[in-house]
Amino acid sequence: MAKGITSREQNYSQWYNDIVLKAGLADHSAVRGCMVIKPYGFAIWEKIQRQLDDMFKATGHQNAYFPLFIPKSFFSKEASHVKGFAKECAVVTHYRLKNDPSGNGIIVDEDAKLEEELIVRPTSETIIWNTYKDWIQSYRDLPILINQWANVVRWEMRTRLFLRTAEFLWQEGHTAHATKEEAIEETIKMVNVYATFAEKWMGIPVLIGTKSENERFAGAIETYCIEALMQDGKALQAGTSHFLGQNFAKAFDVKFQSKEGKLEHVWATSWGVSTRLMGALIMAHSDDKGLVLPPKLAPTQVVFVPIYKSDEELAKISEKVNELKSKLEEKGISTHFDNRDTVKPGFKFAEYELKGYPVRIAIGPKDLEKGTAEIARRDTLTKEFVDQNKVVDYVVNLLDEMQEAIFAKALKFREDNTHKADTYDEFKNILNEKAGFVLAHWDGTPETEEKIKEETQATIRCIPLDNNEEGKCIHSGKPSKQRVVFARAY
Amino acid sequence: MAKGITSREQNYSQWYNDIVLKAGLADHSAVRGCMVIKPYGFAIWEKIQRQLDDMFKATGHQNAYFPLFIPKSFFSKEASHVKGFAKECAVVTHYRLKNDPSGNGIIVDEDAKLEEELIVRPTSETIIWNTYKDWIQSYRDLPILINQWANVVRWEMRTRLFLRTAEFLWQEGHTAHATKEEAIEETIKMVNVYATFAEKWMGIPVLIGTKSENERFAGAIETYCIEALMQDGKALQAGTSHFLGQNFAKAFDVKFQSKEGKLEHVWATSWGVSTRLMGALIMAHSDDKGLVLPPKLAPTQVVFVPIYKSDEELAKISEKVNELKSKLEEKGISTHFDNRDTVKPGFKFAEYELKGYPVRIAIGPKDLEKGTAEIARRDTLTKEFVDQNKVVDYVVNLLDEMQEAIFAKALKFREDNTHKADTYDEFKNILNEKAGFVLAHWDGTPETEEKIKEETQATIRCIPLDNNEEGKCIHSGKPSKQRVVFARAY
Repeated sequence: MAKGITSREQNYSQWYNDIVLKAGLADHSAVRGCMVIKPYGFAIWEKIQRQLDDMFKATGHQNAYFPLFIPKSFFSKEASHVKGFAKECAVVTHYRLKNDPSGNGIIVDEDAKLEEELIVRPTSETIIWNTYKDWIQSYRDLPILINQWANVVRWEMRTRLFLRTAEFLWQEGHTAHATKEEAIEETIKMVNVYATFAEKWMGIPVLIGTKSENERFAGAIETYCIEALMQDGKALQAGTSHFLGQNFAKAFDVKFQSKEGKLEHVWATSWGVSTRLMGALIMAHSDDKGLVLPPKLAPTQVVFVPIYKSDEELAKISEKVNELKSKLEEKGISTHFDNRDTVKPGFKFAEYELKGYPVRIAIGPKDLEKGTAEIARRDTLTKEFVDQNKVVDYVVNLLDEMQEAIFAKALKFREDNTHKADTYDEFKNILNEKAGFVLAHWDGTPETEEKIKEETQATIRCIPLDNNEEGKCIHSGKPSKQRVVFARAY
Repeated sequence: MAKGITSREQNYSQWYNDIVLKAGLADHSAVRGCMVIKPYGFAIWEKIQRQLDDMFKATGHQNAYFPLFIPKSFFSKEASHVKGFAKECAVVTHYRLKNDPSGNGIIVDEDAKLEEELIVRPTSETIIWNTYKDWIQSYRDLPILINQWANVVRWEMRTRLFLRTAEFLWQEGHTAHATKEEAIEETIKMVNVYATFAEKWMGIPVLIGTKSENERFAGAIETYCIEALMQDGKALQAGTSHFLGQNFAKAFDVKFQSKEGKLEHVWATSWGVSTRLMGALIMAHSDDKGLVLPPKLAPTQVVFVPIYKSDEELAKISEKVNELKSKLEEKGISTHFDNRDTVKPGFKFAEYELKGYPVRIAIGPKDLEKGTAEIARRDTLTKEFVDQNKVVDYVVNLLDEMQEAIFAKALKFREDNTHKADTYDEFKNILNEKAGFVLAHWDGTPETEEKIKEETQATIRCIPLDNNEEGKCIHSGKPSKQRVVFARAY
């Protein structure tokens, strides 16, 4: 166990917080529920952003930017949307401060009250569809395939770094289509983009499915999601893609003239992932020594640590390190040479384990003699001596191997922690003893789901797409069309 | 003159708005003073961001993210800072809406009033220095070299797309140093990064200098700036870099233990550029036909337009275009093949001129016969027939040439519109007849600057760094250490 990190067994929640704080990923701020994303955490987020952005552009989307503020009246226009978001939003009521006449610092200037309050966006459907109204006249203006990278605010009462914060960073795609079919196709395309990203880049296996009515996005006809399993057996929703039907087009009166000359409402989707992904990434792979990162998302993939006693030794080692470093950089691998003389190698080893640098290469005087280097991989914590001439190829392969191994380990964990339950007792036993995903029959009603949630804290994480085994609801005994995935969730 | 674009001569301000709206760069929004940045405008901003971000990283900076909200009391801690920003800020006072009991939609829930109001950041010095307090103990923790890409809000009363909006996007660097010298060095380094970016990427020549006390950033000891000249002879401040001394360290009690074991206040800088750069870019180079973009910042550098009558002709042209397109893409040049059959070539020509695609290549049946292509460059609107085998090399060179030509043209314009004035009458005549930059002597007092501003609307844009010709103030006749640069400004 690394210095100062609580073990997972002892307190999983504290372990998570320790890693976030001690690996320098994020920090609490002076503003309730808002976090500071520190440079190392932000560097990981930038990798996530860059890759997702490339994937969005490869699927035909463009970025744009819409206002931070939403007029209050916009929220009322889509009934279920306002119900979902009004309870947790930051409201701007004034636009000026002034000196307190009694000399106690500055106060809000009551003369500068807004006629209509502005809401700091919790999500941007309303302001965007109000804008699309001006952009869409004819089928020729469709589809609109836009994404926005932005900050949003939801006034959460209980917050946790990355997982649930009052302000968070995210991307929100908002597309407009001429037909229902095309909008549904887009919704499914984007949940699949998220799934591919989660599995291939983050190394996190995900279930794809739809949400039950209770868990659906406020304003959506259908919500598709990706659900991941964390090491404590709790589920984490990692991304959602919504088919919004014509709800927002109707609320904001967005119509287009079809090829046939008819005036019709536009079809919509929206989809998003957020800095919550950082929480998933940390929780899915890390261990009691610190962060474990899939190589594709590690800000620095390889760190060199010299082991030396004299300046002469350091000079010789440095020469070799710089040679290997350049060769690795040429292969597109990011590296760092930690030649600080203020701390010992052991300290450095612990620090890079804590921060999850995937590969550590140590070179000492004996290695120079033998022409070797000691290569340690972060995920398995194993080490191997490798001929210096073979280091570059070895590392190239190792990074690929680690990317796959990290995914394979998480997949095995999920498989080991996915169970079927055919009775309610069995269901409760699994939740209490093993946690994880529980596949069970459900009668399809919000009431039953609500009761199960009250009694077990488990919710329906998703309704899998490719499952049609009929059965009986574990709670009500009524007929069920298919098993759904239950879990306790973040 | 392009359809619907007011000419510069007729109304420069309307010309600017027409280009922003008609080229699809930005749009007004439903929220007063806030704009929507449309995909084409955002694509240019992404190019700006990517290049600046690379330059910041190359100079040792890392990105991070700090909260959107700043507790009101933080503003009061630095006296001149609150004076500068309190008058124009969005204030969050509540965190919940509720249904109006009388049934009229939703209203602010008075039970959800914040104990302390939150200000939507107009700039982040206060929240960041409050955070740095926890990060800095020893000289070993310094320097901190952090940049943030973010949205900020300043409640401007008169707004203009990109140039002055209530919400805008920007980057703000915030660095912490152990010594005054190092902080000043950083301040100057970053204003030079901005100048290099403006000249080499944006094609805009800039003057580098310091600001007079009146124009200095609220909380700074010294503000360095880059100033550009627009085609109407008005100046535009394109970027600023502030030496903050120990002002914020003192306000937030940020001290470090020096190598010598003494407890000292930390030295600070901050520096920023914003989406205002988009306004500068548009105004500096564009003409009455639309946008003119330097190739390095154009989202698409080359567009192919086929001229054809039959499908057979189109097929042959497409084959040639696709061949040239791939070869250009291999050279890192971004291209688009506009093979729409719904609009005529003339329409396309006008559209790409409006949007400022740097190079247009038209290929028709005669070109196929002769083995040529017609290459038009946007900046000069000239065309040339080029042998198809030479197109790739020709375009590679042309883009470089255009990048330089656009800068050279802007530089010549600035030189032609920079004048010396030795008397106040001369000064006023130049401002009224020619506008532009006026180099004149000033006695160094805020009072004189204020009077000149009242009487002429001209302000001191910057105090050049490399000028020490002594003289007499044009207004007061008192001694002056050097000429300063006056202009009317955006």
